[in-house]
Order: sequence, then C-alpha cells, then structure tokens
Amino acid sequence: MGGNMATRLIRAGHEIVGFDLSEENRQKAASNGAEIANTLDDLIAALPERKVVWVMVPHGKPTESTLQSLLEKLAEHDIVIDGGNSNYQDSMRRGEIFAEKGMFFLDAGTSGGIWGLEEGYCLMIGGDTDAVVHVSPIFAALAPNPKGWLHVGPVGSGHFVKMVHNGIEYGMMQAYAEGLELMRAKEEFGLNLANITELWRHGSVVRSWLLDLTAEYLKNDPELKDLSDYVSDSGEGRWTVIDSIQEGVPAPVITLSVQMRLRSQQDQSYAGKVLSAMRNAFGGHAVKKVSDE
Amino acid sequence: MGGNMATRLIRAGHEIVGFDLSEENRQKAASNGAEIANTLDDLIAALPERKVVWVMVPHGKPTESTLQSLLEKLAEHDIVIDGGNSNYQDSMRRGEIFAEKGMFFLDAGTSGGIWGLEEGYCLMIGGDTDAVVHVSPIFAALAPNPKGWLHVGPVGSGHFVKMVHNGIEYGMMQAYAEGLELMRAKEEFGLNLANITELWRHGSVVRSWLLDLTAEYLKNDPELKDLSDYVSDSGEGRWTVIDSIQEGVPAPVITLSVQMRLRSQQDQSYAGKVLSAMRNAFGGHAVKKVSDE
Amino acid sequence: MGGNMATRLIRAGHEIVGFDLSEENRQKAASNGAEIANTLDDLIAALPERKVVWVMVPHGKPTESTLQSLLEKLAEHDIVIDGGNSNYQDSMRRGEIFAEKGMFFLDAGTSGGIWGLEEGYCLMIGGDTDAVVHVSPIFAALAPNPKGWLHVGPVGSGHFVKMVHNGIEYGMMQAYAEGLELMRAKEEFGLNLANITELWRHGSVVRSWLLDLTAEYLKNDPELKDLSDYVSDSGEGRWTVIDSIQEGVPAPVITLSVQMRLRSQQDQSYAGKVLSAMRNAFGGHAVKKVSDE
Amino acid sequence: MGGNMATRLIRAGHEIVGFDLSEENRQKAASNGAEIANTLDDLIAALPERKVVWVMVPHGKPTESTLQSLLEKLAEHDIVIDGGNSNYQDSMRRGEIFAEKGMFFLDAGTSGGIWGLEEGYCLMIGGDTDAVVHVSPIFAALAPNPKGWLHVGPVGSGHFVKMVHNGIEYGMMQAYAEGLELMRAKEEFGLNLANITELWRHGSVVRSWLLDLTAEYLKNDPELKDLSDYVSDSGEGRWTVIDSIQEGVPAPVITLSVQMRLRSQQDQSYAGKVLSAMRNAFGGHAVKKVSDE
Repeated sequence: MGGNMATRLIRAGHEIVGFDLSEENRQKAASNGAEIANTLDDLIAALPERKVVWVMVPHGKPTESTLQSLLEKLAEHDIVIDGGNSNYQDSMRRGEIFAEKGMFFLDAGTSGGIWGLEEGYCLMIGGDTDAVVHVSPIFAALAPNPKGWLHVGPVGSGHFVKMVHNGIEYGMMQAYAEGLELMRAKEEFGLNLANITELWRHGSVVRSWLLDLTAEYLKNDPELKDLSDYVSDSGEGRWTVIDSIQEGVPAPVITLSVQMRLRSQQDQSYAGKVLSAMRNAFGGHAVKKVSDE
Repeated sequence: MGGNMATRLIRAGHEIVGFDLSEENRQKAASNGAEIANTLDDLIAALPERKVVWVMVPHGKPTESTLQSLLEKLAEHDIVIDGGNSNYQDSMRRGEIFAEKGMFFLDAGTSGGIWGLEEGYCLMIGGDTDAVVHVSPIFAALAPNPKGWLHVGPVGSGHFVKMVHNGIEYGMMQAYAEGLELMRAKEEFGLNLANITELWRHGSVVRSWLLDLTAEYLKNDPELKDLSDYVSDSGEGRWTVIDSIQEGVPAPVITLSVQMRLRSQQDQSYAGKVLSAMRNAFGGHAVKKVSDE
Repeated sequence: MGGNMATRLIRAGHEIVGFDLSEENRQKAASNGAEIANTLDDLIAALPERKVVWVMVPHGKPTESTLQSLLEKLAEHDIVIDGGNSNYQDSMRRGEIFAEKGMFFLDAGTSGGIWGLEEGYCLMIGGDTDAVVHVSPIFAALAPNPKGWLHVGPVGSGHFVKMVHNGIEYGMMQAYAEGLELMRAKEEFGLNLANITELWRHGSVVRSWLLDLTAEYLKNDPELKDLSDYVSDSGEGRWTVIDSIQEGVPAPVITLSVQMRLRSQQDQSYAGKVLSAMRNAFGGHAVKKVSDE
Repeated sequence: MGGNMATRLIRAGHEIVGFDLSEENRQKAASNGAEIANTLDDLIAALPERKVVWVMVPHGKPTESTLQSLLEKLAEHDIVIDGGNSNYQDSMRRGEIFAEKGMFFLDAGTSGGIWGLEEGYCLMIGGDTDAVVHVSPIFAALAPNPKGWLHVGPVGSGHFVKMVHNGIEYGMMQAYAEGLELMRAKEEFGLNLANITELWRHGSVVRSWLLDLTAEYLKNDPELKDLSDYVSDSGEGRWTVIDSIQEGVPAPVITLSVQMRLRSQQDQSYAGKVLSAMRNAFGGHAVKKVSDE
C-alpha cells in the first residue's frame, strides 16, 4: 500500500525518498520514480529540513520500532505520519512522546485498499493543526478530491475514526454476506447472484462501493468454489468491540460480525462439542462423532 | 410512492389511468398528467385490451382485497403487477390463483424510496417471462437505466429478493448507527460526525448511498435532538429473519438489526425487570425502581 | 420416551395399553408390564369408557396422522393428550377440531429427557380444565412431585410454554459452552474443566441441572475428543425465534443460540466465502483457498 | 459480603480480626463475634505470625490501595487473599509483586451472594499451592462442603474462572429473561409466570438456582411493576467479552447479554436516532419526534 501511495504522490508532482526492508519493493518504488534509500539513516539524510516521514508498516512491533528509531534520529519540528492501522491508544501515547521532544506525530487513518492508487485514498487525520496544515499538500495529493481528507481531531482521533470505519465495514460486509447466502439457499428460485448484485447497484437502497466490488467478483466466479470460508480479521474490528465495551456503548452488530469471523477461523469448536455432550447427557440424543464426518 | 411512479411513467411518455381511495391523491395524480378513475371498475374499463394493472397499496389486507377484486374483474391474458412490499409467499400463492384463470401475476420488488421519482427505481421482478417482456417498457421507464430492472425468477422471487434486500439494508443501517454512536461517545476527541460521514463518502471502503443520505441529514441536524430513538420496522426485516430460520441459514447480523429495532419500540422491557429482580434476589444488589427514574 | 413414561405410570399402579409401530418397542413395553395392542383399533378397543389416549410420536406428520385417526375412532368426551414436541399453533388448531366433535385435546409439554423415568417429568398442560382434572392422576404419576405438573392455560399453551422452555435451554447451554471454551483457550492456566464444573455445582450462582450433567460428562471425557462440534436442533428453538419475531419481542440471546447451532451444521459457509471475496476485492488480501485447507 | 463471610468463619470456630472503613460495619462485625481493629496497622498487629489477611473491598482503586498498604506492612511468608471481583490480569500483576517480596498473594473468586452466609460460598482459588494448603481451613469453613472450594491454578486463575463464571451467569439470566418476556407477551394464554417458573423447578431441563430465586421473587411480585428495566453490570461481564475478543474465541451470547444491559442503561440511544434519520432520509418515513413521546 505504501508503494501505491508513493506512486500517487509522485504522479502529483511530489518528490519522494523511499525506504523498505524488501529489496524488491525498493526496486519497484524506484521504477515508479521514487528516490530510494538503503537505510533509514540514508532516508532521513536525504530529506530537506522540516523533514516529513510517512510510516506505512504493519501495526504493532514494526510500527513501534520504526517510530522509536525516528524519535531518535529526527529533530525538533519534524513531522512523522503513521498511515498504518495502529491502535489509536498507541497513537495517543506516541503523540505525547513526540510532543515531549518538540516533534509532531500525526495519525492518518487510510482507507481505499488497492483501489486508492487510481481512485484516491480517504484520509482521517489526527494531530496538531499546524503540522496538519504543513503537510496538507500530501493529503490533498493522496485523496480523491478536496473532501477526501479531513483533520478530524487531536492525536489518536485519526486512527480511532479509521477503527470505527473498519468496524462499520465489518458489519456491512456481514449483512451482504448473510443476504447472499440466504438467496443462494432458496434453490427453488434459481437466483443468479451476480445479476442481482449488479441490479442492486442501480437505484436500490443498498447500493455501495462494497456492492460494486461484490457484483464484479461474482460476475467472474458466482459459486466462489475455490474460496475458503475462513475469514481473517485484521485488528481494527476487535479493537472496535473492545472499545465499545469499555465505553459502555452497545455495538452488537459490529461485534457479531467480528465474532462470526472468529467462528470461521475455528477448525473445531469446543463450545460445539460441549453442546453435543449436554444434548447427549440430558436427552440421550445420538450426537455426531468426529468419526462420522 | 405509487403517485411518484405514475409521474415517472408519464414523463417517459406512458399513458396512465390511476385510482386511489384518497381524493387528494387522485387530484395530485391528475395534476401530474394521469387520467383518473373514480372506481376500480372505471379504471379497468378505461384500460385498452390486454390490460395491465400496477398495484401499489400496503401489504396484507389492502393488497389482498385489491387483488381479489382484480381477479374477478380482469380477463384472461391480463397482467397484474404487485409493486408493494408483499410477503413473497403470498405472492407465490397469488401467482397460482391468477395462473388458474389464465391471467398473469408479477411481483415487482421496488427500491428507491422518495428518490425514485428523480433517480429511478430498482426493480426486482418475479413471474412469467412472456408477461415480463410484455410490460418491460414500464420497467424500463421506472428504472434508472437498463441495468436497473431485472427478471429475477418465477412468481414470488421478486418479493423474495426485495425482502432480502431490506434485510441487508437493516444490517447496514445498524452498522453505521453503532459506529456513529461510538464516535459520539468518545467525547475527548470532539468529533464532528457530519464532517466525518461526508469525508467517508470520498474514497473510503464504507461509501454508499445510505452514507450519502446520512451525511446530508447530519449536516442539517448533527445532534438529532428532536428525533426519537424509537425505530419502526416495516415487515420485510422480520420476514427475512423468519425465512432464514426456516431455511436453517444463520443470518445473525440481519436478525440482530431487527431485534434492536424491536427493543427500541419497547417502553418498558419486562426482560430488563426480570434481570433486576434476579440481581436483587441473589446479590442483594440495590436495583433501580421505576420511581428513581 | 413414551416407553419410559409408560413404565413410570405402571410403577405407580396405572394400567396401560400400549401401541407402537415398532415390534421391538412393543415387546419392551410388554416386558415392563404394559398390555400391548397390535393396532390402533385394538388399542382403542382395549380402553375402558371415557377413553384416554396419550400420543407420544414425533411432531409433524406422524403426530398429525395419529391424531386424525384418533379423531375418527374415538367418541364424545374421550381425551387425547399430545405429550410430544408439537408446534403450539398446531395444537391450537387440533384443539378446535377435537372440540367440534365433543372430544378433548390436551397438549402436554414434557421435559425431563432420559432422566424422567427415575426423576419424574415436568409437565406443562394446556386444555380444558375438566379434562385436565379427569386425567390428573396420570400427570401426578409422571411428575416428580405435586409441583411438577401444572395446568398452564387453554389448548396450545402447554406446548407454547414447553417451546419457550426449550428456547431458554438453548440459551443456557450456549452460555455454558462459550464459557467453557474460553477457559479452555486460556492455556497458560491449565484449567481442569471437569473439576471447575464440579466446583460450580456447590454454592455458585450458575449451579443448575445442566451443569450437573456437564460436570458428570466432563469427568469421563474432559477433552470431548470424539464428539463432533455439529449441533443438531429439534424445532422448538427455531419456533421460539419465529414466535418472538412475530410478537415483536426481542429475544436476541435465544435467537443467537439457535443460529450458532445452524452455523455448526454448515459444512461450507457461502457467507464466509462472500466475505473472503470482498476482502480480496477491496484490499487485495490474500485469502484462503479451499485447496489450502 | 465481607461481614457475612467473617460471621460464617466465626461460626466455624475461626478467630477473626476485622477492619472496615465504616464504623457501622465494624460494630456489626463486633456484634457477630469478630475482634475489631480501628486501623489497618492495628489489624496487622493483632494477627499471629504467618499473618493471613483476607481483602474484601471493591475492585479497582480500593483494592489496589489496600494491597499496596499490605505489601508495605506485612512480612515474608505472610499471605494475602483477594476475595473480591478483581480483574484477573491485575491479580497476576499483584501476584508477581508479592512474590518478589517473598509474600503470597492468592486470588479467590467468590460466588454465592447474600445466600453464602447460610449456604456457603463457592470459592475458585488461584495461587501458590503451599499457601493454598496453609489457609485451606478458611476455604473449607466458607464453602458449603468439601467440593465447594478448589485450587484452580496459578495466581490470576481464580479471578479468571470467577470472571467466566459471571459471564455465563449473564448469559443464563438473559435467556430466562427473554423467555419470561415472551410468555408474558402471549396475552391470549394468560400465563402465570410465578406458577410456571415454580413448575420448571421440578424435573425440567432448565432448573437451576437462578430459577429458584426467580420463582420466589415472582411469587411476591409477578408484574415487577416497581422494578426499573435499567440493568447494571459490574465489570466481570465486560471483562469476559474483552478477554474473549483478545483470545479470538467467539462468545456471542455472553457478549450480547452484556450489550443488552448496556442498552438498558441508555436513556436515549443515538444509534436509534441515526436509524430514524436514515429512514426519514431515504423513505420519507414519518419518524417519531421526542415531542411525540
């Protein structure tokens, strides 16, 4: 994703110095017009004063260690932007640490996936107003249009809004998935789901970008025969659930969307086995054995 | 909605004869260019041969009695289209009854709400292929574009697909609502929900028509102070749940979206009182009395 | 279950004439002291006046056809008791049909499973008061004690109360199952679930008969290695969900308990595949293929 | 609860020195036979060597500050037992701190509520085996019988098991509450819920201690007219949800039980208002205003 963002910035006339641990990614960025650094030190050395560093690495340890390095290597007034999917509470903590050194830390929740290169990225920015203004040309170049980026609030709020965005996304996806499964189950109607999702794109209440993508995918593979029903989750959904519980705000549908993914990730459900055991114990119900499957 | 649809058809050059129980609605249709009938008999008399009647009345008794009348008054080969939100099983039953008389019954799930007049309606049509072809100019005129209407399957399938559409709609709406509530609860960030929903319209994964409307509404009334949190439901959501249970297909998120509406419709929850009673009984927990509220 | 109930009645001094389609079951009942009839006609002929027939067959068609036969063969004032798990709306309908002929139909929701023979059955009876009084010695013999049977209301209410009972049972079972799974997942504590469920039986808030059975089962097979996580459902759970939706009463936990069983019954979830497709479509996320599993 | 536990210990022949911030509670404990200390220092001074201190204060700050004081005032080999509802991760952390000083920290999850005084408390103990053995006479006196207390695992596991216990309790309670509400809604049957809950206590699958209490409560107040449907939650339920999400274990029913309580605690649901706004925006649906209520 970082590579695509660099490409979009270069196309908009920005000069980029890029660093990535992978030689392949560095070569790719170079071929797209980025100047390439071989180390983080080289990268920093290559930047002009009031250095601006956009970090786009996996959340957790990779982001933490990258930010620690930058904290040591950068100087007062420099600006670091975390465009990854970090936990907003980490971003709040990091914001304080950078502020103590007179540096600026911005958290930029970034949505758009692989389509962002061509269509632009939706950016939810948290952090100091002056710093946001300073780097706003970057946001303007990445976003699809002037309304596609926003300074939403203080440090942490960018990743918080992105977290909630993803929670909503989980809920929407699950709603579509359930509806499609129900239509598929009604075999007597012989419904063509590719045609119906395409239909809904035109004038229906449920039209959306997710529906656009789904219709396109189903056109090529309506039965999804080769796809596993194992559904990964990438952190923000779980964080949304935890945050809602801590806030005392009921978010049952978002939560259940996450839980159905967790369920899909189980090979064997011990809870299911417990239910079978109970049914056998009170009702003498014959229950399925693993060996029956 | 029927009036708006008539208007859209007239604009497309169709000649319409309209009947409505309400004098006001008849006048309104007349002023939009429809010929007006004062009774159902007059309406039928005014139609040319191979009569086509579009029924747009509330589901349940009003639709049932209207269709019964048409069954008696129409002749072989005539076509009746139910564009309302009837239960698909009723439509299947009605399709058989019309077929026995050599007539044609089409069920047209219709989405688009008050925006359909200008933007066009998304139409999900169930029924006999020849009859659908015969009346396809109507569908073409109502739909936003040639992809905006579809013959999805046999009688009943149109309302079935519309039912599932509405179930999905309930789930999507609930996902957005939960996310917005969670952002509002995070007071420390002082988030502007009107700005954020507008932002998400540009390049984010959750962009959708429902989001477009929500952003517009919040622009004018971000606090929604005057709106009740009582949320009505209109049948299709409940039917989707019942159907999924009967089919043995888990649709937990759609279901829970319906249930949160049911919960919002309760003035006092007896279940909640039972929980208070239990807490008091086992833990001696002081529980709230109605008089404390 | 019918055989066990006959045995319990015989032990209490009742004279029983039994009929079952299976020769094996007839022999078994005979060896327990029941007089055996080879046909339904023989059974009816063998009963003294004001005949009382207890029907204990699977719900749906078997019950329907048995009751139709009895309706033809029995006389005014005779009493039929449906002790199976029929849908309460069927029982209401049947109650009316029997009443039209001057006969009495009682619906007896029966709980107790394989333990009822020794511990007694909990009986929830719907129907005419005089008829209930007439056959009350039967209920008294089947129940564990005088409080273990109750005339709860008019025809249908017995099966309705039993239906809700089973809905609650689903919810309780699921709650235990989730808790046990969570404890098992916390590997660092090395918890012994057999010991913990036994512990909870003594003084804890969650002690129950279901817990008694679970603790006993886990003692013999703590890992449940041979049990499948496929969990069957037997009708009442689904009916409870449908009824709650029709009544507009939110029953989210009971509902979700049913849905988790439905999920366990799926070999491949198309909804899961749809989610994988979407993730791939918007994020380019590598998704699992069936061939990876 | 601490007072009741002291009384139960005194009845079993233990000598107790008690301290409480409230003069009233101290007097009460004194009248029940406890020696009373006026300060924590006095309490510690009054204890014989290898001092054993049972802490029974609200979780969070009160427990934290009490344990900090004990850490300073006690000596090597002394034993502190936290019998409150602390978060198990706090207990793990505290266990390490006490261990660094050569002291022993045990976490004792305690269930039984106001009934524990007479019926005994169910105790789930985490911590060092030797320390558990040393204080086992205390556990034996508090528990209803020798099976009513258990050393479940290392420090933290006691409160963890208690946390899950409470999560299960939430799910069970919600299941009963939903079922009772559904029966109450079926007005045509005129069901007497006090009688039905009493009935279920005798031989049914859903019999439990919670049902015992519910039946007793409903006997005195079947309509629960004065009880609010506001349902408090006390921490363990939320922690169970958070822990399950962090573990990746689906616990949907326990979670939803917590969320329905959170919903009951809302005066106005902003999510509900958002749904009303959407319905109005797309369908022109008349929506309730606050002023209509």
